[in-house]
Amino acid sequence: MTDPRCSLTFGDVLREHRRSYPSRTAVVCGDHRFTYPELDDRVNRLANGLTGLGVGDGERVLWLGQNCHRFLETLLATAKLGAICCPINWRNSADEMAFVIDDSKPRVVIWQDEEIGERVRAAREKATHQARWIQHDNGEYETVLADMLPIDSEVVVDAAASALMLYTAAFEGTPNGALLSQMAMFWQSLVWGATHEFTYETTYLASEPMFHVAGLMNLIGTFHRGGTNVFARRVNAEQLCQFIETERCTTSYFVDKTINEIVDVNKDGKRDLKSLRSPPRNPKWDAMVTLGSSPWDNQPGGYGQTETMGMLTYHALGSRPLPGVQARVVDENGNEVPPGEVGELVARGATSMNGYYERTDLNATHQRDSWHHTNDLARREDDGSIAWLGSMERIIKSGSENIYPAEVEACIKTHPAVADCQVTGIPDAEWGQVVAATIVLEAGAAVTEGDIIDHCAARLASYKKPRVVSITHN
Amino acid sequence: MTDPRCSLTFGDVLREHRRSYPSRTAVVCGDHRFTYPELDDRVNRLANGLTGLGVGDGERVLWLGQNCHRFLETLLATAKLGAICCPINWRNSADEMAFVIDDSKPRVVIWQDEEIGERVRAAREKATHQARWIQHDNGEYETVLADMLPIDSEVVVDAAASALMLYTAAFEGTPNGALLSQMAMFWQSLVWGATHEFTYETTYLASEPMFHVAGLMNLIGTFHRGGTNVFARRVNAEQLCQFIETERCTTSYFVDKTINEIVDVNKDGKRDLKSLRSPPRNPKWDAMVTLGSSPWDNQPGGYGQTETMGMLTYHALGSRPLPGVQARVVDENGNEVPPGEVGELVARGATSMNGYYERTDLNATHQRDSWHHTNDLARREDDGSIAWLGSMERIIKSGSENIYPAEVEACIKTHPAVADCQVTGIPDAEWGQVVAATIVLEAGAAVTEGDIIDHCAARLASYKKPRVVSITHN
Repeated sequence: MTDPRCSLTFGDVLREHRRSYPSRTAVVCGDHRFTYPELDDRVNRLANGLTGLGVGDGERVLWLGQNCHRFLETLLATAKLGAICCPINWRNSADEMAFVIDDSKPRVVIWQDEEIGERVRAAREKATHQARWIQHDNGEYETVLADMLPIDSEVVVDAAASALMLYTAAFEGTPNGALLSQMAMFWQSLVWGATHEFTYETTYLASEPMFHVAGLMNLIGTFHRGGTNVFARRVNAEQLCQFIETERCTTSYFVDKTINEIVDVNKDGKRDLKSLRSPPRNPKWDAMVTLGSSPWDNQPGGYGQTETMGMLTYHALGSRPLPGVQARVVDENGNEVPPGEVGELVARGATSMNGYYERTDLNATHQRDSWHHTNDLARREDDGSIAWLGSMERIIKSGSENIYPAEVEACIKTHPAVADCQVTGIPDAEWGQVVAATIVLEAGAAVTEGDIIDHCAARLASYKKPRVVSITHN
Repeated sequence: MTDPRCSLTFGDVLREHRRSYPSRTAVVCGDHRFTYPELDDRVNRLANGLTGLGVGDGERVLWLGQNCHRFLETLLATAKLGAICCPINWRNSADEMAFVIDDSKPRVVIWQDEEIGERVRAAREKATHQARWIQHDNGEYETVLADMLPIDSEVVVDAAASALMLYTAAFEGTPNGALLSQMAMFWQSLVWGATHEFTYETTYLASEPMFHVAGLMNLIGTFHRGGTNVFARRVNAEQLCQFIETERCTTSYFVDKTINEIVDVNKDGKRDLKSLRSPPRNPKWDAMVTLGSSPWDNQPGGYGQTETMGMLTYHALGSRPLPGVQARVVDENGNEVPPGEVGELVARGATSMNGYYERTDLNATHQRDSWHHTNDLARREDDGSIAWLGSMERIIKSGSENIYPAEVEACIKTHPAVADCQVTGIPDAEWGQVVAATIVLEAGAAVTEGDIIDHCAARLASYKKPRVVSITHN
């Protein structure tokens, strides 16, 4: 149990925010706009409604909708109760949704009809687990709130207990629910926000789906600082431009496709997007927005995964872990390998998941020795930075050996003539599989198949070197 | 017990730093210069030596010296063992030192001969408590390290347990040891570092004494990010200039007196201080250094105290508490007062102290209702910011009422004609004491004694209004 004096819970943050930011807009969603005191009142009403439906310590509440202020309310209300909020990928098929419903066994499912109602209804039919279903876009959710008082029950909650479940990591064909604590979300969002220079004047346009950790880092980072979250139900370039202009959004998290769509729909500059700070993306985009100067803007990106509540290393921190988090590169026996050598990246610390929901065997494997095993290959460089090489899932079985293509690729790429390469396993009568490499050369460079094989043989165990090398010119 | 997956301990940070920053200089102190792996080895040697002397969970180790890399080593070694490091004010008299020795009952005292040896020896004579004394500036400390192996015993430590003791708050004439956790130090330093834009390239000139929380926030904030701490034994303007130039220090924490001394000794500009980032202080200083642009540089300061591990509110956060910390303004019954009204400022959260060492009665008073009572008066403004008004220790006893001068001063200062004022109690035959105010007027303003009394009577309980008003012109 975390010491209750350590107020690292969403409930305590919200209790402070209603006092520290009494007139600051907490959320904007369509015509809805609530200050922090109003948000806290709504969260208290929802928490009291959920309590009446049996949602308490460790119980699950599913969010089966798109982006909406009611998702944040659900996350905060479950956090205040010590329960677990699970946003499901609304692009899932009905079968996939039904799997998650039966796997997570929620007390309550909050769902949406618009755009996804047909699949949601089919999933509800297919699932065997029974829950209370509350529709959020037809007034039912609002009725729950209206029936309750906005009294804060002030349940004592452990910040290290699970509060968020995100389905990911379908190692064996079906996904697993990664359980993340309020401390994990808080710690990550504090570092994320510092790296992005979030303040209480930050206005985040929440258009990335909330079942992804990337969107959540921004959403929660903005919330923790008392900023404003503006919800876009889904990505629609025209609408995003409108929201940025009317709400003076300062922050977003767009994939390249969205950037290109916005550049296209706003090519006549009819919307003023200058409030938005962004790292450089492409010349047309850069001209529309304000180029940021935060550590993240200067060195965006890093390595992360859902199980580490997003970023494990930040390029802005020199490709090293965030403070409060440890990383090691280990061999298959769990022993740390020296800098320069390849192994599995493992992590532990404030942001690591508590485990996968009801996956005893998987957890025994992936959390062995009290380290979260990322299932990814990495290498410590001599300066202490961590290079991510790729997934361990891509594996070549040669004789009795396991060969990771990412490791061989990393070796081949150190050859000065090589611009890029890909390594795969090809069938072999004697070994089962052997290593094959496809090389793209640097412009003007020349190299033979033998050069590449020798290069690898000098640096890797012999069984890892390619037997077949195809060379193409750039 | 904090979940051990939450690696918010100094030991875990140091374990990661030796890998993430293998060649980064961790400390510079005179001719001594150690990288993070070297620092970790020294800390492990010291921890093993302390273990042999019986220093374990909750035991105290006193630092009776000036600034030195060995203080940081002592803090980190005790933290790795779950013990408590207590740096004593080296300006204390022998009697004051003896009080702390007997009060804190340390297993080990690490002490210094240079400059303060005479008083230290006298204190050792006067104290009745027996401890193992290790001198750090004659080779004895280094012998302890040399006798031990640099093996990391990896003791499991609770980040919420006490790890630092700072003597402060002499409510009843003698000081009390405020106990602060590693989590309190980590959380504060993360926010402090973000507000100051610390990175792993930060080089802090540690010249502020380490028994003050202000210096510690910088020291620890720099450590947590993998930066470099440069130790100055004490404040000496000539030497500080030399350190800044030779070590390219980026950060300092100087009081006005030090600033003025540096401006004076460096008036010919013989030392290049341009590596140093600072908020503006005075024109000559500003010309010598680089004016910073961090949130702190733009809005330095805030309110804090030792018991909250430094800052409770930051001006850079709009004079609101740091994330993860709550503040309330309460009346004498512990009930929150509305915005605009004056009361005692209370706090709780990750940075609050665990209590005063062995002060059951004081803790029952100052930590009642699970809130740390700051003993200071404050007011929530309508925008949620917190105005600090002054200590509750200044008190006027009038009849059976307690009157806080700070509250009356705050009221008088809202009068447009008043530039400044001070309120005191003066003897009165009927009431014991009554309120007297000394007013300094704004240039050109005019006001009568009656105006000020009426102004207060309209805004405060009648017994709080001044009976005597002296008016002076600016």
